[in-house]
Amino acid sequence: MDTKDISKAVIGRLPRYYRYLGELLEEGVERISSNELSEKMRVTASQIRQDLNNFGGFGQQGYGYNVQYLYTEIGKILGVDHIQNVILLGAGNLGQALANYVQFEKRGFKIVGIFDVNPALRGIRIRGIAVQMVEEIPDFLNNNSVQIAALTLPKSRAAEMTELLVKNGIKAIWNFAHLDLDMPDDVVVENVHLSESLMRLSYNLNRLTDEQKEKG
Amino acid sequence: MDTKDISKAVIGRLPRYYRYLGELLEEGVERISSNELSEKMRVTASQIRQDLNNFGGFGQQGYGYNVQYLYTEIGKILGVDHIQNVILLGAGNLGQALANYVQFEKRGFKIVGIFDVNPALRGIRIRGIAVQMVEEIPDFLNNNSVQIAALTLPKSRAAEMTELLVKNGIKAIWNFAHLDLDMPDDVVVENVHLSESLMRLSYNLNRLTDEQKEKG
Repeated sequence: MDTKDISKAVIGRLPRYYRYLGELLEEGVERISSNELSEKMRVTASQIRQDLNNFGGFGQQGYGYNVQYLYTEIGKILGVDHIQNVILLGAGNLGQALANYVQFEKRGFKIVGIFDVNPALRGIRIRGIAVQMVEEIPDFLNNNSVQIAALTLPKSRAAEMTELLVKNGIKAIWNFAHLDLDMPDDVVVENVHLSESLMRLSYNLNRLTDEQKEKG
Repeated sequence: MDTKDISKAVIGRLPRYYRYLGELLEEGVERISSNELSEKMRVTASQIRQDLNNFGGFGQQGYGYNVQYLYTEIGKILGVDHIQNVILLGAGNLGQALANYVQFEKRGFKIVGIFDVNPALRGIRIRGIAVQMVEEIPDFLNNNSVQIAALTLPKSRAAEMTELLVKNGIKAIWNFAHLDLDMPDDVVVENVHLSESLMRLSYNLNRLTDEQKEKG
């Protein structure tokens, strides 16, 4: 399947489709029309048809989409149809939260190593995995096939650690550190800047309050 | 300041401006040109000028922006110029990670209550705050001024809990639960769907790998 020409906006919506289709499967739903899916997802039916047309031939007029087929195909596009090893840098609260988040395993992401800079954490077990020191990362990556690293270290260590990761073959960084990473072209980054997200919420709340004041 | 006509895209970028301006302040920088800011933020200088023009009069030709002034004004727009109380629903790993995230306090968000459905967690202290049961939420909200709730409960409890929150006056929900919330118009929601974020990373990684194979 050639996904090169699919717009970023459509790609951005695929994980959400994947989530809804997974729920439908769990409920035992085999087929769904774009109208029914539209109602569930609060997207227009025409957007759904347009989005899914990008991948060709998933739907049949008057017959609806085959949920399992669509789920499987979107899973392939997203790369979640196979196990992907992940290492975690930063065994603090957020790192531990990620390590314990079962949703990730359901999606094929398997945490195989956890590293930190704090010697006090060495050997502590999180979900059965003993925390190692970051100095052990090169050896670990040499002996294990891992392309994805989640970065939950403080900002002050993140840039330096990223360099170490990339030098040792990491190709994808899931960045929770509070900075924008400077990456070579052959490494992908997905940022989760939590405090920016909270500020967006705060902005919208303030707007809402202003509007209500105006209405009196 | 009238921010009604500012596009969503600009608003979406404000938290990032705010972060960079905060760093500049910490470094003792008093003035910055759009060109310097452009280099730091990897946004074109013309975009920066356009974005900041929305708020009127921040910059002076040939003189640059007053960092403190810009930081303060954007902070007001984002509503982070005053303390905002937050309650947390879900005292699991993710809830604890959020409770311990110092960045939030720096932005004026103050966690004043932590609630869970699990009786085993009752009374456990997280950052000095004793976990209460969700049944205590109505009383708590009656006696405390809180508009924002962070939701880190499992999906199965999230919808029901949201109803309880809204009924008791919560106006903004920071949703980490793995579902889309069904909200009245006078409540704002900001979703952080972590597994969707990880899938976007996975998609981009797979695209990268495909491209490299093609190049041989």
